[in-house]
Parts: sequence; C-alpha cells; structure tokens
Amino acid sequence: MYLSEMSKEELMSFKNENVKLYDDFKAQGLCLNMARGNPCKEQLDLSVDMLKVFDDGQFMSSCGSDVRNYGLLDGIPEAKKLFSDMIGVKEDEIIIFGNSSLNAMFFAVQTAFNKGVLGGKPWSQCDKIKFLCPVPGYDRHFKVTEFFGVEMINVPMTSTGPDMDMIEKLVAEDESIKGIWCVPQYSNPDGIIYSDETVKRFAALKPKAKDFRIFWDNAYCIHHLTDSPKYILNILDEAKKAGNEDIVYIFGSTSKITFPGAGVAVMGGSKANIDDLKKYLGISIISYDKMNQFRHVKYFGTFENMLEHMKKHMAIIAPKFQLVCDKLKAEIAPLGIGSWTEPKGGYFVSFNAPNGCAKRIVQLCADAGVTLTGAGATFPYGKDPEDKNIRLAPTYPPIDDLAKAMELFTICVKIAAAEKLLEA
Amino acid sequence: MYLSEMSKEELMSFKNENVKLYDDFKAQGLCLNMARGNPCKEQLDLSVDMLKVFDDGQFMSSCGSDVRNYGLLDGIPEAKKLFSDMIGVKEDEIIIFGNSSLNAMFFAVQTAFNKGVLGGKPWSQCDKIKFLCPVPGYDRHFKVTEFFGVEMINVPMTSTGPDMDMIEKLVAEDESIKGIWCVPQYSNPDGIIYSDETVKRFAALKPKAKDFRIFWDNAYCIHHLTDSPKYILNILDEAKKAGNEDIVYIFGSTSKITFPGAGVAVMGGSKANIDDLKKYLGISIISYDKMNQFRHVKYFGTFENMLEHMKKHMAIIAPKFQLVCDKLKAEIAPLGIGSWTEPKGGYFVSFNAPNGCAKRIVQLCADAGVTLTGAGATFPYGKDPEDKNIRLAPTYPPIDDLAKAMELFTICVKIAAAEKLLEA
Repeated sequence: MYLSEMSKEELMSFKNENVKLYDDFKAQGLCLNMARGNPCKEQLDLSVDMLKVFDDGQFMSSCGSDVRNYGLLDGIPEAKKLFSDMIGVKEDEIIIFGNSSLNAMFFAVQTAFNKGVLGGKPWSQCDKIKFLCPVPGYDRHFKVTEFFGVEMINVPMTSTGPDMDMIEKLVAEDESIKGIWCVPQYSNPDGIIYSDETVKRFAALKPKAKDFRIFWDNAYCIHHLTDSPKYILNILDEAKKAGNEDIVYIFGSTSKITFPGAGVAVMGGSKANIDDLKKYLGISIISYDKMNQFRHVKYFGTFENMLEHMKKHMAIIAPKFQLVCDKLKAEIAPLGIGSWTEPKGGYFVSFNAPNGCAKRIVQLCADAGVTLTGAGATFPYGKDPEDKNIRLAPTYPPIDDLAKAMELFTICVKIAAAEKLLEA
Repeated sequence: MYLSEMSKEELMSFKNENVKLYDDFKAQGLCLNMARGNPCKEQLDLSVDMLKVFDDGQFMSSCGSDVRNYGLLDGIPEAKKLFSDMIGVKEDEIIIFGNSSLNAMFFAVQTAFNKGVLGGKPWSQCDKIKFLCPVPGYDRHFKVTEFFGVEMINVPMTSTGPDMDMIEKLVAEDESIKGIWCVPQYSNPDGIIYSDETVKRFAALKPKAKDFRIFWDNAYCIHHLTDSPKYILNILDEAKKAGNEDIVYIFGSTSKITFPGAGVAVMGGSKANIDDLKKYLGISIISYDKMNQFRHVKYFGTFENMLEHMKKHMAIIAPKFQLVCDKLKAEIAPLGIGSWTEPKGGYFVSFNAPNGCAKRIVQLCADAGVTLTGAGATFPYGKDPEDKNIRLAPTYPPIDDLAKAMELFTICVKIAAAEKLLEA
C-alpha cells in the first residue's frame, strides 16, 4: 500500500512502528560512513603490488630522464601514452598532473581567471562569470566555481544527460556563461550515461562566449558495474568533426583504479588548449610526481591491463550496489516514497525522497550513527530546491555493515515520509 | 696582474689566447647542464630504500586511517610530527602538502588574492599589491608573484641577509606592500645565512599592511656543506616573543633530501594562519599523497635520522662546491674580474662578473655546450640591472664534467671581461 493512500491513523501507526525500529538501531551504537565514494580495503589491496615495481632499480624514462629528478613538467612519455588511451586523446593532447584531477580542474579554472582561455580576456576582468551545473551533480565541482565567485545555474538531468535544449539556448544567448560541469560516463550521483546524441550536441555547441569550455570530468570512464558496459562517444573526436575541438577540457584519474590519495590525474584537450595551459603549469610547480607516474606505467603496461584490473574492482563492489538496490526495491518501492537509479557504473546510487524529506532523513541516519553525504550537497551552494536528493555511496563499508546501514536508511525514509504526510 | 691594469695590447693578446682555448672547447662538443639545482644520480640513489618501506603491508596511520584512501587533507599525524621538527613549528602549526613547496607558496598567494589573509580584504580587490624581493633571489618565487600581477621591488642582499633598514622603512610606509620572499638559510643563490639580528628584525616587523606576510622559504634548512653548520634562529619563536606570530609563512620540503619530483612539501605558521588556510585547502584537492608522506615517515623515523641522511648528501656534493670555488680562486681572483660566494650549504655558488658581462658569459658557455641558469634569472622580471650575476649549480654533473664546465666558464669570464674592457 502506498503511504499516500494511508489514513491518518494508519500513518501514525506506521510511523510509530518505524520509530520503534529506529530506536532499536540507535541503541546498537553504529558508526558507519557512506558519505564519500571511498573504495574499500579490498579494493585498495588490489594495487599493492604496484609498490614493488621499482625493485628492479630502473628509474629511467624512455626519453632518457631519471624520473626521480626534476623535469618533464607535463609528464613522462610512457604515462602520456597509457593515459591518452584511457581518456581518448593523442599523446600531445594530454598533461599528466599529480594525484588529483580536482586539482587539475582547479588549475584550469584558475588559469582562465588569471590569464584567460586561449588568449581571451582573463575571466577576473569580466563583470560576471557563470557556469551551467547539471543537477544533481558533484559537490566538489560546485565548490571550485563557488570559490572563484562564479554564478552557478542549475540544469536538470534527464536519462540521456543534461537538458540539451536548455543548454544550447543559454550558451547561445549569454556571453557570461563560460563553462559547464559534466560527468558524462556514470554521472555523479545519478549514474547516467550521456547518450550519443547528447555527446554530439555538446561537441557541436556554439556558445556566444568563444572561451566557453565543457569541463568533461570522465572520472568513471572505466569504472563499470556490468560485463558489457556501454561507453560514451569520444567527445574530442566529435568536437573535431564539428570543427569545434577547443570546446572541451577532459579530466580523468586513477584515484579509484589504484589509490585514492596516490593515483595519477590527467587532463586532455585539443593541442591548442593543452599547449596554452602548459605555459602556466610551471608557475606553481616544478614537476609532478613522475615516480608515481612511472609506478603506474610499470604496473599496468597497457590500457587493456587497466581494463582487466577494473574487473577485480567490479567483483568487489557490484554486490554492494546490488544490495542497495534490492533493499530499496523491497522496502521503499511498495510504499511509493522514493525513486532511485540503478547505475551500471560509477560510485553512487542517487535516491530521491519525497520533497522536503532529504535533510530529515540524513539527520535521522546521522543520529543513529550512519553518516551520509549531506543533503543538498549535490546542488550548487548546497541548496537542493526540493530537498529530496540523497547520494548513497555503497563502496566503502563491508557488506554486512552496508546491509545494516541500508536497513536503517529505509527506516529513516519511512519515518520522514510519514512525518511529511502527517504534517500536510 | 688585474685585467683592469693591462694595456690595450696586453688585453688583446689575453683575449685572443682565451678565444683559442674557447674554440678548442667548442670543438669537443660538450653537453653539460648546470642550470638548475638538480641533485645528481648518487644523491638520488641515497633514498632508494625508501621505496621498500611498504613491503611490510602496513598502511595504517596512528590515527586509524588507511593512508591509501582519501582523507586527512592536512597530512597524517606522523608526518606532522616529523616535519614540524624539521621546520621548527608545533604539530598544529603545519600543513603537509604534495611534492612541491612552490605549489604551497602559490596556494598561499592565490588564497590571499581570492580570500584575503586572516579575514582581510582579498588582494584581488586592492588597487595594487607589491612584494619585496631580496636580490639576487630565486626566479621561481618571482614568477609566482609576477603571475598574479604583483609589483616587485628589489631589496639588496648583504652578508647578513637583506637590507633590513630598507625593508623596515618600506613596509612601515606602504600599505600595498604585502609580502617578501626570503630564503633565510643558505639564500638562493648567495648562500647567505641570515644573522640572528636579521631574523629578530624580521620577526619584529611592523608593516602598515596588517596582512603582510614573510614568505620564509627554508628550502635548505638542513642542507649543509660543513660538519659544524650555523643554524638561523627560529623565526616563529622570535615572532611569538615579539607578539607578531602571524607575520610569517614557513615553507620546506624534502625535494633535495629524498627525491626532487617525489618528496614531501610542508608549510608552517601560527595556528591562526594555518587554520585560516586549511579552510581553502579542500577546494582544490581531496587529499595529498599520504602514501608518500608515510613512506618518508617510515624511512626516516626521526628528524635526527634525516640529519644523518643529509651528511651522505654532503659527502657527495661538498667536493663539487670545493672544485667550483678552487677553480674561481685560481683563475678569476688573480685577474680581479669577478667575486663569488663560498657557501656553507644550499645548492648554489653566486658569481658576480664585471658589470654588463653576465649575459655574454652565459651565451658563450651555451654556444660551447654548457647550459647555465639564464643571466638575469635571479632578479624579478628576469632583469639584472647590472647584468652581472650568474648562478652556478654544481651538484648535478659528475665531478670530471664539472671540472671541464668550470674550465670553460672561467675562459668565458675572461673573454667577456676582456671584451668589456676593450670596449671602454
């Protein structure tokens, strides 16, 4: 029976039952964290052999440089080869950064503010800078643009990607719109795979601002949860076909392939874009950690081996995603008090509670010892206009803990939904 | 006989002799690089055992976090302990960054521009920002402030540090002066050790700008070339005594202790400063490479062991510095055509040619296959007003190559000096 069809008495009794279950949970003194997309210990263990690759005492890059020393600011050639295969660009269309793709994105935005994009006016000298933000989205993207005082405009997500009609219209009209944040393969948090049409429309965008850039954060490009993944189209290829190759900055990293704190991050784009950004790279750093780049190259050898490696991740985490979806299907679906995604990859399940319930649910969970991503975090400025979206991150907890956390979560959804209906 | 005492004929003949020697060198087809302070292969080999510390499979920090995962944005507690000893601050007065202290400095300047210093007005909203630059100094410092459009003011170095009379006067008068670049222990390139009085005067500075900061780049804090090093005073301690503890940002790294591209960089300062900067750290990165932090901690254990380790560096590079100084003493001193420092630590010998000769010398060397730091690089905007300073970096080349390079260098100095006198 849907909760919305219950009488006030039925709702009261439903709520009381669940409050009793909730109190039992609270008494257990749980302490679980599902806030961030952290890999679990078993995933971290997968890459530990990477730490032995220097046992051979071989530190020379193919270009004749010792990776232990300074130099090779934009990366060692071997890493350019490996990671250009990963993000779908050529070896002269990539920069190898340190351990953080967020840092690469910050660098790109900051350089645009200080020096402009490809010879354009520095954004810091413009009256107003706006970014389009498909929502729900990734909180850390929004924090970067918020830091620089960018005005962020919400764009709704659909099952094929962001609302392209709206995007095409806005960028054609408003020269102050300079960018958009995208996670095209397994969007964060919805797990949406941008359709071929969406990618083509992005690649063919004709923004009024010549220095408009798509920030294409392909964080989960090979992070599949099925054996037969669907890949997005290569946006740089599509942009080249459309005579529009400078429109996109592509980002990726091995944070969730090897080690979250000690992976390798990369940025790709047209040679013109990459050459322009390289001019400023050496202002803030002498060189990135080339030993870690070489570690990755020696360990994986080829992109194909990285893909094999990702199957081991899938084996560990796919059952966790299954558990989350099963639990929601069993407990929430029959009551009609929520909808969610069943992602084919990435790191999240995006749950939509009844309007006005997300904050309450997250608070109830927290009070009983389960930390979720803050309600609102998936929207610019932390403001979910309908207070309904909650990002669930199932990878980190052991599966038994996850089962408990999901039991608690569904109880909290039930309580909050009942409270909301009783208020009405 | 001093070159300045020679007759025109003697000068011509002296020059011709040296041009002949120079041409012989050129015919050898040398290819040596003394441009940057790069450690040599033997130095890099000193730390290779650090790469084995994870053979024990132990990745847990004392705080219970797995260093392989996200988290601990400001560093693992063990690294805070080790490196706070190194730069002379407390464990809550330090941030552990990635592999680059230059990156930490850039972060500090950029945060000041975007968010202000300790609640002050963002520098980007000020009409004019100026920095004091003791000269000769470090080119990469100057590039950071140049990037942000800062006006740089030269301050002469003395044998006890920068001209403190000038600094005190300027900062007291001009509110737009917001910072100064310092390398206090073995200054780059002069190798000057700031005297106790200099440090105390820095610590007691009363700038008109409340958000003035000393950028105290203690890059060579334990990089000695003698067995009985003289240490500079602890500036944060002195600043606290003067009721002035917020005036200084301290930087350091292991780039020249372990690996230049894969070391650990740190920043220290008053708790107020550090807490303020920590607020913005997470905008541009999720966490730095904690595995590398832990690698350093596991390898060294204590600061005392780091000091022992540095003696091995000294054993390798001190003879190279000796060779440079010996060669200059033998070839240049008798002719009165240059002066230089005999550093007790650090990475450079600073050579002052006769005015107007530096560019010519660097060009002559380059044409014969020896790359030096560009003339002018040690001054803001790359402009040495007297065109005389050349930074020699003796650590990288094998000692036989270094001997050759120095022979060539002295020949080039002789040619350039003779040319200059013949012009007059």
